[in-house]
Amino acid sequence: MTEPTPLRRPRADQARLVADIVRHQIHAGGYPDGLPAESELAAEFLVSRNAVRQALAVLKAEGLIDREPKVGTRVAVRKYDHGLNHLVGLKETFKDYGEIRNEVRAAMTVSAPPSVAARLAVAPGEPVVFIERLRYLGDLPLSLDMTYLARDIGDAVLEHSLEHNDVFALIELVTGQRLGGADVAVEAVSADPHSAAILQVPQSASLLLLERLAHLDDGRPVDLEYIRLRGDRITLRSNLIRGE
Amino acid sequence: MTEPTPLRRPRADQARLVADIVRHQIHAGGYPDGLPAESELAAEFLVSRNAVRQALAVLKAEGLIDREPKVGTRVAVRKYDHGLNHLVGLKETFKDYGEIRNEVRAAMTVSAPPSVAARLAVAPGEPVVFIERLRYLGDLPLSLDMTYLARDIGDAVLEHSLEHNDVFALIELVTGQRLGGADVAVEAVSADPHSAAILQVPQSASLLLLERLAHLDDGRPVDLEYIRLRGDRITLRSNLIRGE
Repeated sequence: MTEPTPLRRPRADQARLVADIVRHQIHAGGYPDGLPAESELAAEFLVSRNAVRQALAVLKAEGLIDREPKVGTRVAVRKYDHGLNHLVGLKETFKDYGEIRNEVRAAMTVSAPPSVAARLAVAPGEPVVFIERLRYLGDLPLSLDMTYLARDIGDAVLEHSLEHNDVFALIELVTGQRLGGADVAVEAVSADPHSAAILQVPQSASLLLLERLAHLDDGRPVDLEYIRLRGDRITLRSNLIRGE
Repeated sequence: MTEPTPLRRPRADQARLVADIVRHQIHAGGYPDGLPAESELAAEFLVSRNAVRQALAVLKAEGLIDREPKVGTRVAVRKYDHGLNHLVGLKETFKDYGEIRNEVRAAMTVSAPPSVAARLAVAPGEPVVFIERLRYLGDLPLSLDMTYLARDIGDAVLEHSLEHNDVFALIELVTGQRLGGADVAVEAVSADPHSAAILQVPQSASLLLLERLAHLDDGRPVDLEYIRLRGDRITLRSNLIRGE
């Protein structure tokens, strides 16, 4: 085994490297008793204490850790995994963590804007069902979801409780069909002031924004969603296979 | 067909809804000749002109559109798709868009911090190869990648040009093995000042942060990467299948 050599890089580069690894350790459930002292982290990563301090400042700014004199550095938030390989509702995903409760902010029939109509394969202006939900895990707002449903399915879905059910489960209930899958686009955006207030995050906090079009087993597109997930609370996880 | 009815919701909610749909239209290559006038968008979405104005202000703040009196509103940036179903390098992904050029910011042997060692299944403190690259599409910085490679593979990779090759391709070249797949975690984070300067984005701009552990066909983990992608330039796309 070679003698460890200090990392010879500018401090800001050292700090980024430390922050990234510690961040993922935190998400993996590491440091239940608090983070190691600055000097220990410096020794672990073979970087300067100043670099460690800068890394911890980044994680503090992200809201991931709290730092207090004497008490030390502890993990401030727990982050939740949301799988990207399978089409699973939030209630199903979080069944081991706690109860998902949906605050229904809107549930109405609207005329489909042309772009929504095109995705749902209906005529522009045709009525579709629009649902907006703020989704909580316990008292924590996690996700703001806007959903457009094909009308026949949406009307039937609205006869059930939206507070305690995933829309996916209701679609399968009312159609008697299994959902087949979905196309998803994932983006990182800064929260606009209104969305930030609803999700209880600082203005300009980073959000994961998903556009997701789910279709029935027979291929019919039925459910178009725009989903804002709190970046400080959710990690998306996926297994990739090698291919062209 | 029912008579279209105006959307009766608070203005900020109307604006979010319009912004989300227009954002994805832009990413899908819509509006090559500029966005429709405010009045047309208001009619399309059955919302007030004030709501349209607020939606366009959000998209302008994200840097997606430019608005100028008389000239109108045009798409300011082109966004690029990066697939999440398959393990594909950036050069392979963008082969139809242009040349990916890598600025190598670091290429060195470092002692593996315990957490990196654990992921790569080597002993803590063992030497691993560390590579940091800033990746450009033409003149546009898209991605800042930090890579840890198992030493035997890393040493062989360093004998090849990192400027014009994906690390994935080099790993397959030097091992004579195909990569099997990877585990990926996706997060949205705000850019720290130093990363923002390198990627040429405003401070606190939203980034997609990927942690990706790739393994060879025989299951051996060989390549641990921390990848920052510009949120204003990259959309991750995935197809999900229904499952537990």
